[in-house]
Amino acid sequence: MNDREAVHRILDAGFLCHIAFQHEGQAMIIPTAYGRKDDAIYLHGSNRNRMMNALLNGQTACVSVTHLDGIVLARSMFHASANYRSLVAFGKAVLIEDEQERIEGLRIISDHIAKGRWNEVITGSKEELQATMVLKIPVEQVSVKIRSGGPEGDENIPCEAWSGHIPLALKALEPCSSKLSAPGTPWPESVLEVLKRYT
Amino acid sequence: MNDREAVHRILDAGFLCHIAFQHEGQAMIIPTAYGRKDDAIYLHGSNRNRMMNALLNGQTACVSVTHLDGIVLARSMFHASANYRSLVAFGKAVLIEDEQERIEGLRIISDHIAKGRWNEVITGSKEELQATMVLKIPVEQVSVKIRSGGPEGDENIPCEAWSGHIPLALKALEPCSSKLSAPGTPWPESVLEVLKRYT
Repeated sequence: MNDREAVHRILDAGFLCHIAFQHEGQAMIIPTAYGRKDDAIYLHGSNRNRMMNALLNGQTACVSVTHLDGIVLARSMFHASANYRSLVAFGKAVLIEDEQERIEGLRIISDHIAKGRWNEVITGSKEELQATMVLKIPVEQVSVKIRSGGPEGDENIPCEAWSGHIPLALKALEPCSSKLSAPGTPWPESVLEVLKRYT
Repeated sequence: MNDREAVHRILDAGFLCHIAFQHEGQAMIIPTAYGRKDDAIYLHGSNRNRMMNALLNGQTACVSVTHLDGIVLARSMFHASANYRSLVAFGKAVLIEDEQERIEGLRIISDHIAKGRWNEVITGSKEELQATMVLKIPVEQVSVKIRSGGPEGDENIPCEAWSGHIPLALKALEPCSSKLSAPGTPWPESVLEVLKRYT
């Protein structure tokens, strides 16, 4: 894998991916949550999930993770750009069948979304677990694209407009308690982890 | 189109989409910037852009726009969720050939990213324009998915953990001037528009 650490960093900076797959001769995309362990992406969904079932027909999935980091405003339209960290990964999905591995896959996804949440709550009923598929996509091929900083190539543009870039970042706002949580209930560790991640 | 206004709202809330297409029998994804006018999505790229050329072979493109709005933490893992506004649209890309329409397409994309920037800067050279493709994807079919609010179905879960949701939002940070902009140059209208959009 080319620059494995860069790949892990991009995968670990979020939990939303877009997955492309073939369905009846049409390229489709579904956005979904994922987890990562080592060089594999983990997904879960209902047993009836169309995408997950399509991914198990032997095709190679294409997974994209994109973090938008800013807008680059140059003095020429053709130098305008965006800052981002993104990757496109390819791999064949494998259905995890062993019960312990399935639970471990769910824990990987849960921890990826909100670290520590797994230990704060119950896992769910046997029926819910049985109605759920857990897939693993070992990343076989991946390409990373990163852009950062201001505009380039603007030096000789006959225009005096302000140029530069505007950073964008995903931020967490004040958590909203459900009506089940008594007023004043302190936020658990997982909430603090989410707030730290999206500071 | 099902709920046309909801589709426009989701498309207009961002400028980053993911496009799925078929290339030599493989489903691929590329993240890219877009613009919207009426019920069409506009894209631009180099004449050699692999995705754009693939989209012009008669296939139906699949475009996804996803805004991540929060993390939903329930008392059971199986009730955990995310808040989002997303759509998946289908349509066949058309190459815009008329010079005035090409420029109008570029203006639509530019305005979609940073309203008003088009009028502040130069459009670029004839050579740059000639090296650029502008595509229009009339949306033929679209599905919208929106989730908001806190966890659901948690009432009878034997667990006392805090539950609720943590809103997430893309925010603009302080703009960074390029070295071409004299210190103290005021931000133009387009920058103020971007700051307003990502407040």
